[in-house]
Amino acid sequence: MPRSTGVRGFLERLDRGPVIGDGGFVFALEKRGYVQAGPWTPEAVIEHPEAVKQLHREFLRAGSDICQAFTFYASEDKLKNRGHGAGNHGVYAINKAAVEIVKECTYPEGGLVAGGLSQTPTYITTLNKDLVKAEVKKQLEVFKTEGVDLMICEYYEHVEEAEWHVEAVKEFMPGVPVCVSLCINETSDVHGVPTGECGVKLARAGADVVGINCHFDPFRCLAATKEMVAAVKKAGFDKVHFMIQPLGYMTPDASVQGFIDLPEFPFALEPRVCTRFEMMRYAREAYDAGIRFIGGCCGFEPYHIRALSEELSKERGGYMPVGAVNYGKFLEKHTKPWVRARASKEYWQTLKPGTGRPYSASLSRSDQWGVTAGHELVKQHEEETTKEELESGLAFKKQIMKEAI
Amino acid sequence: MPRSTGVRGFLERLDRGPVIGDGGFVFALEKRGYVQAGPWTPEAVIEHPEAVKQLHREFLRAGSDICQAFTFYASEDKLKNRGHGAGNHGVYAINKAAVEIVKECTYPEGGLVAGGLSQTPTYITTLNKDLVKAEVKKQLEVFKTEGVDLMICEYYEHVEEAEWHVEAVKEFMPGVPVCVSLCINETSDVHGVPTGECGVKLARAGADVVGINCHFDPFRCLAATKEMVAAVKKAGFDKVHFMIQPLGYMTPDASVQGFIDLPEFPFALEPRVCTRFEMMRYAREAYDAGIRFIGGCCGFEPYHIRALSEELSKERGGYMPVGAVNYGKFLEKHTKPWVRARASKEYWQTLKPGTGRPYSASLSRSDQWGVTAGHELVKQHEEETTKEELESGLAFKKQIMKEAI
Amino acid sequence: MPRSTGVRGFLERLDRGPVIGDGGFVFALEKRGYVQAGPWTPEAVIEHPEAVKQLHREFLRAGSDICQAFTFYASEDKLKNRGHGAGNHGVYAINKAAVEIVKECTYPEGGLVAGGLSQTPTYITTLNKDLVKAEVKKQLEVFKTEGVDLMICEYYEHVEEAEWHVEAVKEFMPGVPVCVSLCINETSDVHGVPTGECGVKLARAGADVVGINCHFDPFRCLAATKEMVAAVKKAGFDKVHFMIQPLGYMTPDASVQGFIDLPEFPFALEPRVCTRFEMMRYAREAYDAGIRFIGGCCGFEPYHIRALSEELSKERGGYMPVGAVNYGKFLEKHTKPWVRARASKEYWQTLKPGTGRPYSASLSRSDQWGVTAGHELVKQHEEETTKEELESGLAFKKQIMKEAI
Amino acid sequence: MPRSTGVRGFLERLDRGPVIGDGGFVFALEKRGYVQAGPWTPEAVIEHPEAVKQLHREFLRAGSDICQAFTFYASEDKLKNRGHGAGNHGVYAINKAAVEIVKECTYPEGGLVAGGLSQTPTYITTLNKDLVKAEVKKQLEVFKTEGVDLMICEYYEHVEEAEWHVEAVKEFMPGVPVCVSLCINETSDVHGVPTGECGVKLARAGADVVGINCHFDPFRCLAATKEMVAAVKKAGFDKVHFMIQPLGYMTPDASVQGFIDLPEFPFALEPRVCTRFEMMRYAREAYDAGIRFIGGCCGFEPYHIRALSEELSKERGGYMPVGAVNYGKFLEKHTKPWVRARASKEYWQTLKPGTGRPYSASLSRSDQWGVTAGHELVKQHEEETTKEELESGLAFKKQIMKEAI
Repeated sequence: MPRSTGVRGFLERLDRGPVIGDGGFVFALEKRGYVQAGPWTPEAVIEHPEAVKQLHREFLRAGSDICQAFTFYASEDKLKNRGHGAGNHGVYAINKAAVEIVKECTYPEGGLVAGGLSQTPTYITTLNKDLVKAEVKKQLEVFKTEGVDLMICEYYEHVEEAEWHVEAVKEFMPGVPVCVSLCINETSDVHGVPTGECGVKLARAGADVVGINCHFDPFRCLAATKEMVAAVKKAGFDKVHFMIQPLGYMTPDASVQGFIDLPEFPFALEPRVCTRFEMMRYAREAYDAGIRFIGGCCGFEPYHIRALSEELSKERGGYMPVGAVNYGKFLEKHTKPWVRARASKEYWQTLKPGTGRPYSASLSRSDQWGVTAGHELVKQHEEETTKEELESGLAFKKQIMKEAI
Repeated sequence: MPRSTGVRGFLERLDRGPVIGDGGFVFALEKRGYVQAGPWTPEAVIEHPEAVKQLHREFLRAGSDICQAFTFYASEDKLKNRGHGAGNHGVYAINKAAVEIVKECTYPEGGLVAGGLSQTPTYITTLNKDLVKAEVKKQLEVFKTEGVDLMICEYYEHVEEAEWHVEAVKEFMPGVPVCVSLCINETSDVHGVPTGECGVKLARAGADVVGINCHFDPFRCLAATKEMVAAVKKAGFDKVHFMIQPLGYMTPDASVQGFIDLPEFPFALEPRVCTRFEMMRYAREAYDAGIRFIGGCCGFEPYHIRALSEELSKERGGYMPVGAVNYGKFLEKHTKPWVRARASKEYWQTLKPGTGRPYSASLSRSDQWGVTAGHELVKQHEEETTKEELESGLAFKKQIMKEAI
Repeated sequence: MPRSTGVRGFLERLDRGPVIGDGGFVFALEKRGYVQAGPWTPEAVIEHPEAVKQLHREFLRAGSDICQAFTFYASEDKLKNRGHGAGNHGVYAINKAAVEIVKECTYPEGGLVAGGLSQTPTYITTLNKDLVKAEVKKQLEVFKTEGVDLMICEYYEHVEEAEWHVEAVKEFMPGVPVCVSLCINETSDVHGVPTGECGVKLARAGADVVGINCHFDPFRCLAATKEMVAAVKKAGFDKVHFMIQPLGYMTPDASVQGFIDLPEFPFALEPRVCTRFEMMRYAREAYDAGIRFIGGCCGFEPYHIRALSEELSKERGGYMPVGAVNYGKFLEKHTKPWVRARASKEYWQTLKPGTGRPYSASLSRSDQWGVTAGHELVKQHEEETTKEELESGLAFKKQIMKEAI
Repeated sequence: MPRSTGVRGFLERLDRGPVIGDGGFVFALEKRGYVQAGPWTPEAVIEHPEAVKQLHREFLRAGSDICQAFTFYASEDKLKNRGHGAGNHGVYAINKAAVEIVKECTYPEGGLVAGGLSQTPTYITTLNKDLVKAEVKKQLEVFKTEGVDLMICEYYEHVEEAEWHVEAVKEFMPGVPVCVSLCINETSDVHGVPTGECGVKLARAGADVVGINCHFDPFRCLAATKEMVAAVKKAGFDKVHFMIQPLGYMTPDASVQGFIDLPEFPFALEPRVCTRFEMMRYAREAYDAGIRFIGGCCGFEPYHIRALSEELSKERGGYMPVGAVNYGKFLEKHTKPWVRARASKEYWQTLKPGTGRPYSASLSRSDQWGVTAGHELVKQHEEETTKEELESGLAFKKQIMKEAI
């Protein structure tokens, strides 16, 4: 497999050129029927391993160099949240199965395996560093025992929690490269720490790779990551690398908390799905910005990763994934002559795709919740959501919602 | 599995209530990396059987009652067209593998298996009935030998070719129920035969189920199928059933040849992907129109079939697929209170999803090729497309393109 | 004034080539502050004659050949409707002032003067031919006494009322050419009489010119007028001419009663205002369809008429109105070079103007009232609208509103 | 006339409460046929005084307190630019006629009269302070002789030129209140001076009122003016008032030079025209931001000023203009019951008007010229634009145009 350079080390690979990540598993597997929207937890690694493996294989086939164990939200406090049954499998069993699965698929293809952490309910509910680290270490124990090539800590709205997670990995799994990404926009984290400064804090906490994932579209994530690149370089961290794993949805109108605030989240995001040409543009701009770990998150399907892989073919030693569109070259085999005539780069690069939705507007008015950390309403618990909670959430929303047209 | 009524016969099932089909395989597997855009042929049944099986399993999990063997475009003349290598496997091997795979997945779940025919290049190139039937019978031989529960003849732009295929099935596989669907709009087939009249012709040719598939969105396919329902009933065919398998893309602006004429075809259709709520509305309207075989085609992902299944749960004995969204009930477990507040039927039913694309228009100007049958430019051949062909296609397009604003 | 051919007769002018009408007065003068939205009556001819004259002058300057006396809705029953004070001036005084004003402005410029009738509340309230004709004759008396070059009967939703008005004019003002236009779409009048058939009925009633005005955009009015052209010609009325006076608003989404049913009517139609290039295209297509009396209605400003006049310059003996844009030739004098570079025909003809409104959809869901004639709710009376009437209107709307997406 | 408080002094009026300005004359009169697009010069004051008077009267009727003499671009260097014939009337005659006309219309209604200056070609061509002031004083001589209540210096892209104009007025017409507004966005002037700092510079130059006009929509002009309010207050200029006279077009997508850079400028801006409800929201937000001189510029029609006047009725002593819509109260008299049902405040405030343009996108890609001052291409001259100039403009555009999607 040409994209594999024979080099084992993750950081060495980053130094040599771009590495391609995979896409998000929870949204892709929800569409396929193996993840429940709402809890978004990864019990499928135990209940439907074949479906998880198939998705790993597809991302690898599309060109992923790094595959993440499907351990998103697999912390014990989250698995048990609000009466969700995923907790019955236990944090150990879920994380272990995830690592075994990803290894089985990835190593034969020459890829590397990443263990994964993400935000914990414990942080937002307690804001207590010791409790958060204790929670995190339950997952790390599995990754340490099973062995992984790198760790990805991802999807934090508050840089503080991310720092704590990075610290925990450095303490508990010394020597393993640590990547960390926040799900924030080009301005600041949800506590108001400027995005560039967040990058510096994470570098200072010991991360080898810092960046942005989820919540915003490729181009807004690019803007945010560029803030980090500039600030981290200015702060003198010359060896730190950068990563980006954006949504596969266009979100020019998303506010602080990204696509979650959009009224279409999570079941009507379809019109926002990125085309492969938008993805190719994203890959090029990310590479040109000096970002070397380039992947995707929620909304990415295998063909989106394939587009990244195709765009950066030259930079990855000429590796071209199976099914690359080559700007429509295969359309030359189409049965209709006018479709064959679309087989050109200029055609697809300049097309602004029609939406087919004359009753839809371009932009939506986002919910604009500025607070989260420590607020009563966002605390998690093991009981089911009550009707009273739902109602108080609506009342609060009315109270703080900015007057918008 | 509650959706299985214990009744074996396809037509008996239709008489009892709605049966749900599956979605299209070529577009879904192109995104996953196993089908090549352009030729759209099903050699994956031999080269990547696991990927094909996984997709069958997902549709079944979503609630499909009828699964089609992945034999789209698997006629010998198409497999060999324009230098495409799929022909090397041979028409027999491909169709046989497809039937074996679909049986392995479907029967344990209580579903039925359909063999499949689709339009052949021989028709458009020769307009010769004997040659077309000869081509068709190469596939039918496999279906007859292997055994299928029903035949689906689909994706015809000219009712004449569809009639010939139906006749061939009736002659060659007597006793097997025959479904037939055209990929035409609410007006007429590409030769100008009114849509309702097409339905009557197909009933007269002996089809047990007639209808529409592909090329147009669910609501335009509904309009077309309703034309058939009215005409076929009026013509006195009381036992004929109706089927519908539309695109999973919104295409209010598509002209004669449907989404193929849209400038976004086939690589930038993303903004047009239907939401599951649009799918639920489609399922309800189809059922209310008396259509009993309800499925999907290109653009359908497993969650789209799941939406049909969920909407018609009551009509199918209360069967509810795993992962049904129940209008967002599981959002009550989401970590953000304002997302939990979206857990209502009214919210999702009335939402007009933002497109996130302020530089895109709602509608596109379709190519508007009115001719196909017999025209020199649309004839197929085994050689690669030449540069001269591409250029003459563009010149012809300019000549006949209607002046449009 | 070159556009004046020296020929006095209206019908003779039509035979020689296209004549240009003016635009609607009620919408233009509402924006200027002299007409009240809601009643839309023309008491300004008495209360603010200078404002009315100025608008006549502007349309003439833009190239109008035919100017209408501002007598829209100036029937006695309408002037007195629902407590509106315009009735105090009296039907005679208003119609007389309107004719005097239009003559003062028009004759010095070589134009012709049209008296005007429009739909009466008496029709919809009584459906009684004698009562309707009696009402109409109050206005005709003024036109007969004062003298006009032609009569324009316009803005009828029911062809029946239009026929009665035409008959009344023929009886009462023999020898005066009669034009008549309906405000209906390409399908039928509000009673369901097909549009083409409406044209034939009006020709049979004695009209010299038949056509369409108001309620729909130029291109939908064109489609409707073409229906009339085909049917009237087929019925053998070789001497009948055709007229068109559409809205200056784009209304692809308007239903039976046109822009009145759009949720934006009447105060938020701004995004729909036609550009002058859309107007030029309309003028060309109207001329090519054999329509010879080409003008405008609500939403037309003087520069819209100027665009018609500019487009048909060659067909009108080379007459070019002051201020013709000549596809932006004067932009060559603009201070910014990139604006000067827009001085080309191709630029303006192909531009799809951005809407500047990312929170607005392209299409609106129209109200869809299919009934009007004779229904209790649409009857007029001299008293103010009561609260009960408002509420019963809403209830009725809910009852009959078609299920819409 | 109730809006007149009996107070003569302009600044005293501002201290007491909001004063309403008028709208722009060049765009309004271009549509009516009296101004030529491209040069945009005011020779109509001599050639068509009745048309100019009528527009003044309409703005007054709509509620304007302050009327500007129509002297836009009436500097000698501009009148003579690029072979434009307006120069033949002479700078003195044009400015004198403009003042006489505005006085005749305004004083009987209790309004105040403003003389007007705007940017001169001399600035951009020479960047020489003495030459600019000499040019300006030719106009000031007329205003001084004829007498005006205040001076409005407006439409500057470079704060430096605006400062020079303010200085010239203070020197030459001591004691006359001076208002000054820039046509820049919320970021900076075209030379990069931050918008807030521009405000401070103008206050320091002696302006009594500072603010923003033209080039951007009401809400972007508000954002820019708020920058000035904050900076000027912070700098301690407690007596300085603020003004705002935005476009009547929505321009969320305009770049540095505002609507001029939009591809629709100047002939296809129609879909962007503001509704009266957008205007009412603008008036309220401007008042709430402490701005006391509130008017309009290009794109404003009399009914737009009427909307401002209606919204601020209470703050102006209860004065309500003729034709105020009162959120559709008069619709209660409409002949259709469902239109009568739109007679509510909530209806019109929450409506997002459909654009009627399914082939148009929401946003356009602006030209993005960052340079102007001193650049060879933007220098003015008395000769006609040559073909070479046009071509070099296009070449330059390609060179500097930012790569945009």
